[in-house]
Amino acid sequence: MAAGCAVEAFFETAPILKDEDAIKQTVETFFHQHYVQHSRLACVTSGGTTVPLERRCVRFIDNFSSGNRGAASTEYFLKAGYAVIFLYRRGTVQPFCRSAPEDALLTCLEPDDYLGVKVRRVFSFDVEQAVRSNHEALVQHKILKVPYTTLFEYLQILRIIASASFRLQRLAMFYLAAAVSDFYVPWESMGEHKIQSAGGSLAMQLASVPKMIKVLREIWAPLAFCVSFKLETDQTILIQKAKDALSKYGVHAVVANELSTRRNKVTVVTHEGEVVIEKTEQHPDVEMGLVEYLCGKHTEFLNKQEEY
Amino acid sequence: MAAGCAVEAFFETAPILKDEDAIKQTVETFFHQHYVQHSRLACVTSGGTTVPLERRCVRFIDNFSSGNRGAASTEYFLKAGYAVIFLYRRGTVQPFCRSAPEDALLTCLEPDDYLGVKVRRVFSFDVEQAVRSNHEALVQHKILKVPYTTLFEYLQILRIIASASFRLQRLAMFYLAAAVSDFYVPWESMGEHKIQSAGGSLAMQLASVPKMIKVLREIWAPLAFCVSFKLETDQTILIQKAKDALSKYGVHAVVANELSTRRNKVTVVTHEGEVVIEKTEQHPDVEMGLVEYLCGKHTEFLNKQEEY
Repeated sequence: MAAGCAVEAFFETAPILKDEDAIKQTVETFFHQHYVQHSRLACVTSGGTTVPLERRCVRFIDNFSSGNRGAASTEYFLKAGYAVIFLYRRGTVQPFCRSAPEDALLTCLEPDDYLGVKVRRVFSFDVEQAVRSNHEALVQHKILKVPYTTLFEYLQILRIIASASFRLQRLAMFYLAAAVSDFYVPWESMGEHKIQSAGGSLAMQLASVPKMIKVLREIWAPLAFCVSFKLETDQTILIQKAKDALSKYGVHAVVANELSTRRNKVTVVTHEGEVVIEKTEQHPDVEMGLVEYLCGKHTEFLNKQEEY
Repeated sequence: MAAGCAVEAFFETAPILKDEDAIKQTVETFFHQHYVQHSRLACVTSGGTTVPLERRCVRFIDNFSSGNRGAASTEYFLKAGYAVIFLYRRGTVQPFCRSAPEDALLTCLEPDDYLGVKVRRVFSFDVEQAVRSNHEALVQHKILKVPYTTLFEYLQILRIIASASFRLQRLAMFYLAAAVSDFYVPWESMGEHKIQSAGGSLAMQLASVPKMIKVLREIWAPLAFCVSFKLETDQTILIQKAKDALSKYGVHAVVANELSTRRNKVTVVTHEGEVVIEKTEQHPDVEMGLVEYLCGKHTEFLNKQEEY
């Protein structure tokens, strides 16, 4: 099947996106607002997609991602003056909340005779910071959070955001940090009911997901600055796979990261070469240096375009 | 392979459980405490297990479960005077927090000039109730929360709890509400690295998980009262599958639930017959009636044993 047909077939056979109209309207309003202000906007995708194995979904395949990278990067994009659409997997780490413990509400609060409840002293600084920063970003309309769960939802919403980004043209950046499944079970070939286990072992056949980054670059948002991510567990194939992605999808940069070292080090691959970005004393998160570097690249990209 | 061998092989080839000694000690201490107090104890399992598809895990198969049933049931067991070991999937719903919104910390709190942060008025009643009830259960040592993520962790920890339950003998109840995968990829046959997608479609072969409920009943905790759960999406096969489970695993009750109606109705299948339990005005959660019914069955079970 030709690439275009595969993409069309994917969307045509996908289950209907819930609240599609409301999502479209919210996204378009957000873009309009930042178009009026002529501000830069990053769409940060975060967390991993699920792939349902049954229509009435009991089992699904998931892609591991805590969402830490997307949440951290969102904080640094906001600091750099960008507006951010945070397209995140439900339940993953939120911006400003990276240090929050599990079950944060029950863990951070304690009963108090006078106030009802209060923040436990050990968490008070972090909680106050998180609540204030989040509140500020929301009331200033600097952040729009859009949740997804399945691969279908992720790609449907990403298409909505990309299509709406035409307003901002080159001021828009796509920062595709989400862990998106390469394989899925097409909705039409999926069983209605829970897979039965009586027969002993289970054999599954998964189809490959059409390469949507290429479509995003070429059709949905051809003017935007586009950064994709490559995660591997095998360092020896990582950089080559990132270079392949750069030329294959036509993105402006590929962030290559290896599972075990990803919190400390990434390599940004562009047409000009490779730059290693590491956690340092000045950059306590690798995302700080990474976002700084990419904002610089985005500036270069904007300046170059102005020369024409 | 004989059933016993399959179980042994599963545990022998499973990855080592992190913090095994600490978990063992905490669980044993909790049982000892309730043995001294001669109180009933329910081990409530909640949420779904993951099955890693790669050793350095990027992808995994997950079983859908919000953890709502386990969390609600835990609250009602505590109200009924039971101590509870809550064996839950990381990130799923916690007891007393069922009505909490997503990203509860950021959503329920707001900045306050005087206090730093405070609970938003609309959430204040629920948050105070949740924090107080949770705090009370913890300081009175009525609840022990033990998290898991993978199928391996779940079964390894369940075995630890079941083995430690011998102290309480018939006073212990197993309430196995977790959604446990029927299939897995044995650790030894698992790839070290991320599955590569270059070849187009992906074929996967999964082995069936040995039936651990039978082992729990016969070997790990033969004296305890044991309730298992059966979830199906097809109502027509549900009750028969629950009856099959009752005789096959030798449990005392099977709670049969259908995916789309599970919040409103369950059927409890025992050797005496079937009882339908529904949400009513008196029972705003189906778990309220369910736990009440099972506590009654547990009492009967204890009384019967005393007659011998």
